Amino acid sequence: MALVWLDLAGVFFFAVSGSLLAARKQFDIVGSVLLASLVALGGGVIRDIIINAGPPAAFANPVYVLPPLLAAALVYFLFANVQRFTSLLTLFDAGGLALFCITGTVKALSAELNPFAAVLLGVTTAVGGGLLRDITANEVPGLFNARDLYAIPAFLGAGLTAVLWVSGTFSAWTAVGVAVLVFVFRVTAWRRGWHAPLAVRGWHRFGLDSTGKSRGLD
Amino acid sequence: MALVWLDLAGVFFFAVSGSLLAARKQFDIVGSVLLASLVALGGGVIRDIIINAGPPAAFANPVYVLPPLLAAALVYFLFANVQRFTSLLTLFDAGGLALFCITGTVKALSAELNPFAAVLLGVTTAVGGGLLRDITANEVPGLFNARDLYAIPAFLGAGLTAVLWVSGTFSAWTAVGVAVLVFVFRVTAWRRGWHAPLAVRGWHRFGLDSTGKSRGLD
Amino acid sequence: MALVWLDLAGVFFFAVSGSLLAARKQFDIVGSVLLASLVALGGGVIRDIIINAGPPAAFANPVYVLPPLLAAALVYFLFANVQRFTSLLTLFDAGGLALFCITGTVKALSAELNPFAAVLLGVTTAVGGGLLRDITANEVPGLFNARDLYAIPAFLGAGLTAVLWVSGTFSAWTAVGVAVLVFVFRVTAWRRGWHAPLAVRGWHRFGLDSTGKSRGLD
Repeated sequence: MALVWLDLAGVFFFAVSGSLLAARKQFDIVGSVLLASLVALGGGVIRDIIINAGPPAAFANPVYVLPPLLAAALVYFLFANVQRFTSLLTLFDAGGLALFCITGTVKALSAELNPFAAVLLGVTTAVGGGLLRDITANEVPGLFNARDLYAIPAFLGAGLTAVLWVSGTFSAWTAVGVAVLVFVFRVTAWRRGWHAPLAVRGWHRFGLDSTGKSRGLD
Repeated sequence: MALVWLDLAGVFFFAVSGSLLAARKQFDIVGSVLLASLVALGGGVIRDIIINAGPPAAFANPVYVLPPLLAAALVYFLFANVQRFTSLLTLFDAGGLALFCITGTVKALSAELNPFAAVLLGVTTAVGGGLLRDITANEVPGLFNARDLYAIPAFLGAGLTAVLWVSGTFSAWTAVGVAVLVFVFRVTAWRRGWHAPLAVRGWHRFGLDSTGKSRGLD
Repeated sequence: MALVWLDLAGVFFFAVSGSLLAARKQFDIVGSVLLASLVALGGGVIRDIIINAGPPAAFANPVYVLPPLLAAALVYFLFANVQRFTSLLTLFDAGGLALFCITGTVKALSAELNPFAAVLLGVTTAVGGGLLRDITANEVPGLFNARDLYAIPAFLGAGLTAVLWVSGTFSAWTAVGVAVLVFVFRVTAWRRGWHAPLAVRGWHRFGLDSTGKSRGLD
């Protein structure tokens, strides 16, 4: 079914983002495969555990091991000549995000969760792998410390998927349409630097409050 | 039932602690909502996955999304004038700890786990959210690196809850009594600096052993 | 049954590694017990959640609480005189790795997962606790950033266990044989500095590529 192919494509995109980060961190080839696996399969394993319908697909179905191996091999042979590392990682990550917010939502709807829960689970699937990647690489997760919109595109994609599903118009073609929309939204937000306001009204970055004084956190 | 209200109150307290940390870390408002959700709902999701009784309440029941949204809004509008940041975070965190060690234990007992396992699961629920908060914020978790007692009050609350339940005297009133006791214990430990001995006999902080020499770790 | 004893021995070894790290990080005795519990029981809890066969053994069976308490007590009373900290941690960690890759694989096979999934789950069990240990101690996990082979011995042990099981020759004696083999392989790799190539062909550590120029990551 088309959904499996979309899921495998998402797994591959996230796996490449994991292997790219492993390369930048100077991990070895084994660490590259393992980090690719964690990023690519982590979000889906969390999803399947929460849906609670038998062992996660990543363990039960051997085909899910191939994308991380392929990603690590690609990075091993091709990355030495790559200059624009951060751009490449962001693009592959955006591809995984765009596909997983759809497949995660559909898997939850197929397991008969209500549409509201399905959207939350779709977003969790989409952002889970990247969160694990950043935590294990010992960085503050981009999910929380976003310089540009990251979770919002995932919410948009999961919400559209739920609407299409409930209205009976979900198909391989509308799924691809949603994926393209989420991908373009995420990449545009990144290139244009679209961002949400800070967590406190009147604050701006650089450690000063709106009156220009240091914030004096105790 | 009263237990749901205690649980929602605990969710709200932990959510505020998450949004406060997001503010201090200069995350944006989306990151504030997401970190509040992770801290507030993470411990309960781990508990429900371990109990293994269908999808976690945080996904199945839409009402659990409200406390993180409310917490992020409160911090957004009110925090700019707050001076005593660390104190506030510690107080809200203590409130969540006091309520979750009770509701986590009761949920486990209701799922027919034995009292011993229920106490362990209650403590896991209570400390899980804060552990996730510290890990994602890229700090050594306060749970392990405690300058004052943190897990001990949770064990006390979970243990008392199990005793009340087994003896048939658990009610909304005794639950509130246990919560107050745990909260006062935790806050007093924090203000007075009560702490446990270090992990090795004869060692003290500041990198010197009991003979005054540097420890020479290889 | 012998398998429970092997599992408990693995739990104890990982618990000691957790308490040793707690000592080096100057955590207190409560943090030592909790970190020992997380490292020793975390991998098994993840395994049992993925197998999805009721509450994890670590919660259901009270005996699993004893090894972390014992480990924290041992480190508390004996560690002040220990000089070779890193060596000791590596040895205990290798012992846990050697036993968990076997018991994890066997538990998965007993739950009727296919041998392929069982090997993946055995490796996950074996490396999961150490991964949690490094993440909570706020270090880049040794699993990914290995200066010597770590995951490969676990794969070897899990694979041999699956072969023995499928061929009907798995027994307490062959299990001990596999454990000794994995332990010797891991310790030898550590002492000799055996390592895999980096994640990108032609790169070496120290931030220079094969042409001697700085890598110019953007």
